Amino acid sequence: MQGRETQTRMPPVLSRSRRTRRTPFSDRVEAQGVKAYTVYNHMLLPTVFESLEADYHHLKRQVQLWDVSCERQVQVRGPDAQRLVQLLTPRNLSGMSVGQCFYTPMVDETGGMLNDPVTLKLAEDRYWISIADSDLLLWVKGLANGMRLDAAVDEPDVSPLAVQGPRADDLMAAVFGEDIRSLRFFRFREVKLDGQTLVVARSGYSKQGGFEVYLQDSSFGGALWDKLFEAGQAFQVRAGCPNLIERIEGGLLSYGNDMTRENTPHECGLGRFCQTADAIGCIGRDALIRASMEGPQRMIRGLRIAGEALTPPTQPWAIHTDDQWVGQVTSAVWSPDFRCNVAIGMLELGWWDEGSVVEVETPFGNRQATVSQLNFS
Amino acid sequence: MQGRETQTRMPPVLSRSRRTRRTPFSDRVEAQGVKAYTVYNHMLLPTVFESLEADYHHLKRQVQLWDVSCERQVQVRGPDAQRLVQLLTPRNLSGMSVGQCFYTPMVDETGGMLNDPVTLKLAEDRYWISIADSDLLLWVKGLANGMRLDAAVDEPDVSPLAVQGPRADDLMAAVFGEDIRSLRFFRFREVKLDGQTLVVARSGYSKQGGFEVYLQDSSFGGALWDKLFEAGQAFQVRAGCPNLIERIEGGLLSYGNDMTRENTPHECGLGRFCQTADAIGCIGRDALIRASMEGPQRMIRGLRIAGEALTPPTQPWAIHTDDQWVGQVTSAVWSPDFRCNVAIGMLELGWWDEGSVVEVETPFGNRQATVSQLNFS
Repeated sequence: MQGRETQTRMPPVLSRSRRTRRTPFSDRVEAQGVKAYTVYNHMLLPTVFESLEADYHHLKRQVQLWDVSCERQVQVRGPDAQRLVQLLTPRNLSGMSVGQCFYTPMVDETGGMLNDPVTLKLAEDRYWISIADSDLLLWVKGLANGMRLDAAVDEPDVSPLAVQGPRADDLMAAVFGEDIRSLRFFRFREVKLDGQTLVVARSGYSKQGGFEVYLQDSSFGGALWDKLFEAGQAFQVRAGCPNLIERIEGGLLSYGNDMTRENTPHECGLGRFCQTADAIGCIGRDALIRASMEGPQRMIRGLRIAGEALTPPTQPWAIHTDDQWVGQVTSAVWSPDFRCNVAIGMLELGWWDEGSVVEVETPFGNRQATVSQLNFS
Repeated sequence: MQGRETQTRMPPVLSRSRRTRRTPFSDRVEAQGVKAYTVYNHMLLPTVFESLEADYHHLKRQVQLWDVSCERQVQVRGPDAQRLVQLLTPRNLSGMSVGQCFYTPMVDETGGMLNDPVTLKLAEDRYWISIADSDLLLWVKGLANGMRLDAAVDEPDVSPLAVQGPRADDLMAAVFGEDIRSLRFFRFREVKLDGQTLVVARSGYSKQGGFEVYLQDSSFGGALWDKLFEAGQAFQVRAGCPNLIERIEGGLLSYGNDMTRENTPHECGLGRFCQTADAIGCIGRDALIRASMEGPQRMIRGLRIAGEALTPPTQPWAIHTDDQWVGQVTSAVWSPDFRCNVAIGMLELGWWDEGSVVEVETPFGNRQATVSQLNFS
């Protein structure tokens, strides 16, 4: 049926090509019935299996395997590796040990966020930067070349597979042995499986706990997935993916959605990851020291938006109070557990106090909203 | 119906968010019934309206408006602008005039392709680099910072709208006046429309001829589209987009599909755009001089693949001869006008001669293929 009823049209499908790279696990997630993808670091990232809400309830109760291969690694190796990685971030890396993961806001010379990866220190002269959605590789290569640093920068054949949910420890112990339970948060170790060396970290983009298993050989992807999936049958494992509802409830930020190059880490509530004065060499150091003296002009916050369930935004929704623009909502979704719309947004100076009541301009009409902490859970 | 018949499942849809940015023309292309999108430079790029073949026939006969906002601009300004742009490319820019567009392969220190943009020289100290799908901004910023160059690098609010097809001149003349017909290939000029300054270039990602109109204020996007679309009624204008069939027929390469960081410009058949010896300062100069002395180890080519219509690949298809791997097909589609499958791929040394017969491993069985020139038309 053709007609003017544009709402009844099918939503546009995703055209795929080599440029929207498949992963070592794509065959498996497609066999499990992935219903929606996004493109992240030029790679397929599943976003829905059964439904956003069914996936959410399952994630909070059981355990899921997530194909997060799109968290590509920027590998930095060589005598200048530490100096180069410290150039990138206002987080002080001087106390970082081999085997640690650090959440590392990455900034440009103006203090604007370029990415918010987890950095793994594999050796004194070797790091993996597990990136969000921007070609950070090019920034790091550009700096290394421009400054003639003695460091090799590349994207190795490394693809993370996340095991997330309250039963993640049980599943991992079944495959890797009981000792894996002793791995501390944001620590990693190497493990062997069928002759392959995997890096296993206690980390992941949910608040339900879990691990990320860094596959180092794409051709072993199917076998790794199958091994975990089979062992997971005892724990009701399913294929899953980062879940929009769960991550907003938990206050987990999404680069490109909740923050961009326009924002400093301080505006993103990431001040606790900045020891700018001690981050000697960080390219954004001067700009961030100035910005932190002046204080942030806007701040990221949670919001509870009143009324019935909203469809998630595909572009920012303006926040008003009276007739004044005071910010924007960047992520929002209905939370079944909180029985309200939970959201993340940025509010201008003077409007970000907890409990402030503002108005959000949604495509479904204006809605009252209350400012809250980022983490709803 | 649930079941094991995975072929009958709906193809995964594209999940959208702020991170997959809408464009100044998204409302208009959606009103025109866009059926598929891809994500390109973190932005929506339409790929199908009526159907791949219907869009193709129309493009080759009439005129279309294309939302190619995803060709983001890396703007380089300042006293060191020319030096910085020359750092990026083995093309000799010393003779480039204001008002010219240059197709500029961009390479890293190993000579590997980072992007293949069109560069516009707006002034002696100001360039736009109209990029393919990689965050070239970060590479340029990294180099500028690392080398402490006196140049500002940013992504301005500029969104190209392409007018493509044999009747493009007629449509453009109806809106901008007859004088626009005199604009030469790969030249641009500023034009005024309703008080807005637009940059109009004779360029575009088709072999049918046409223009790219660089919008410099997103809020004017709807009005610009409407003006062109209305004037186009006399010329059977439709909403369109870069067409997979037409671009393979014409031998137009797609960065990320037909070439990656693994390839030199020479392997991509782009040697004519490299004057490496004269490109003093180019960061890949030493590597490319060495590579060109050794000669390329693989070469991009067209291929005609025998048999019935193929579904385009979502990952490279191996090319064999006897039992030897000799290359891969990266783009392929059925051409209604040539009545065969046309393809682009890379062949190893010894196998790229025109007329060579090879075998392509497709998901639909092995097919015989004949090596040809890149441009089929």
